[in-house]
Amino acid sequence: MSPKHNFDIATELTKHSPGVYSGQTSEAYANMVGPFGGVIASTLLRAVLDHDERIGNPISLTINYAAPVANGNFNLFASPTRTNRSTQHWYIELTQNKEVVISGTAVTAKRRDTWSSTESLYPDVPSPEQIKPTPLDSAPPWAQNYEIRMIKGAPLALTPNDNPDSITLQWIRDYPDRNLDFLSLAAICDAFFPRIYVRRQEFVPIGTISLTIYFHANEQNLATNGNHSVLGHTRALKFFNGYFDQTGEIWSHDGTLLATTSQLVYYKE
Amino acid sequence: MSPKHNFDIATELTKHSPGVYSGQTSEAYANMVGPFGGVIASTLLRAVLDHDERIGNPISLTINYAAPVANGNFNLFASPTRTNRSTQHWYIELTQNKEVVISGTAVTAKRRDTWSSTESLYPDVPSPEQIKPTPLDSAPPWAQNYEIRMIKGAPLALTPNDNPDSITLQWIRDYPDRNLDFLSLAAICDAFFPRIYVRRQEFVPIGTISLTIYFHANEQNLATNGNHSVLGHTRALKFFNGYFDQTGEIWSHDGTLLATTSQLVYYKE
Repeated sequence: MSPKHNFDIATELTKHSPGVYSGQTSEAYANMVGPFGGVIASTLLRAVLDHDERIGNPISLTINYAAPVANGNFNLFASPTRTNRSTQHWYIELTQNKEVVISGTAVTAKRRDTWSSTESLYPDVPSPEQIKPTPLDSAPPWAQNYEIRMIKGAPLALTPNDNPDSITLQWIRDYPDRNLDFLSLAAICDAFFPRIYVRRQEFVPIGTISLTIYFHANEQNLATNGNHSVLGHTRALKFFNGYFDQTGEIWSHDGTLLATTSQLVYYKE
Repeated sequence: MSPKHNFDIATELTKHSPGVYSGQTSEAYANMVGPFGGVIASTLLRAVLDHDERIGNPISLTINYAAPVANGNFNLFASPTRTNRSTQHWYIELTQNKEVVISGTAVTAKRRDTWSSTESLYPDVPSPEQIKPTPLDSAPPWAQNYEIRMIKGAPLALTPNDNPDSITLQWIRDYPDRNLDFLSLAAICDAFFPRIYVRRQEFVPIGTISLTIYFHANEQNLATNGNHSVLGHTRALKFFNGYFDQTGEIWSHDGTLLATTSQLVYYKE
């Protein structure tokens, strides 16, 4: 039996009663301050997916980072606020010392086969094999759990150029390999370096305030991707007086749009 | 004294105790079934803005449409889940018959002057005066409270064309005129016809599941826009097995990016 992946350890929860869990932050996914927000988002989503009353798969997730998560133990609470025939709405809270640190809402749904169409164009990029893995030795611990191959848009301080924008295109997968699921897809939606580091030549304090993910994939799409890299594409539309957005898409290795995502990020100066 | 605008009547709340309100749906903003979701979003935001403990202005709002709002009375509950020095996180619920019908989270913040930059390009469009108001007589009641001038992307059933995509560009303002504020901006973020009506030549049942708005403007930006039209730009990235996204931007009449928005919408067939 292969050892558990760091990601599965980091998102592990102990269930005490329906919707009531405890967990602990993982050193493997530490960020500059506290844990990597993407794994926190996945942990909140896991509290929904592990709930006995859950119907369907995730279609929408919003995570609000209200305060820094302290390293150590936390409590998690997930409850269905409304259950319909094919959709279910969730409220989720992560608390430490009885204070709300993270709150979130999610929607799960049973999909039916319908007319479907992808309008967004799959970016014209080289395959992962044609791109060298990006050295991540100087990046925070969480990044060591990913293999990232940047096609465009590394932090500007590391790769100065004259015509900066905030666009990044990157191949990314869990390291070591792990088959894609809704949990790892959620974390990958947050596994871009902050847009302001790509746009500006200096590192300033930042922190995600709110993250939203729309899942456009079913379990079969995820299984088809397996442990291949997925393509992340992101950009900021506006930086304004302390807050910028980061808007992006995640594509499977073979061109299926798996998720669209946006977040609002605090920055200093 | 000029009479109250329909929008102000529709979003009016009676405060019973801190964060506890009641309100009622407005016939003027009725949709095909129940009230227009944009005004519901504004009403939930108003519960935050009218709260005595609120600090700062809205920067992020997510509204989850868990069930159809019945015409008539509703109760609203808004509470700060966490108050920091410059940011505040909110949870909001609209209930009818003691059941959760709408839930939401919001973040308000005090902005500071910082380095700022708009990366998204202002669309190259004719001014509102150059475009005829779009006839809305056959649209639901809510649309009668807006003046819309569509530059591109009217519902396909009304204006068939051979190369359909789901993009709409429209000038929009409250009718009669009303000065832009955070509440009307929130409603305008939802005041696009559903993308699937633009893309396909038939009308199918739809309903917004979750709506997210990031506000990229301060009060001065809104005051500068005043009662001018704002430019809405939106598209769907993917329609898949019952759910599509609608991703967009709202620009002031003079080219300031005021808000970015996304929503996930249910569709049948």
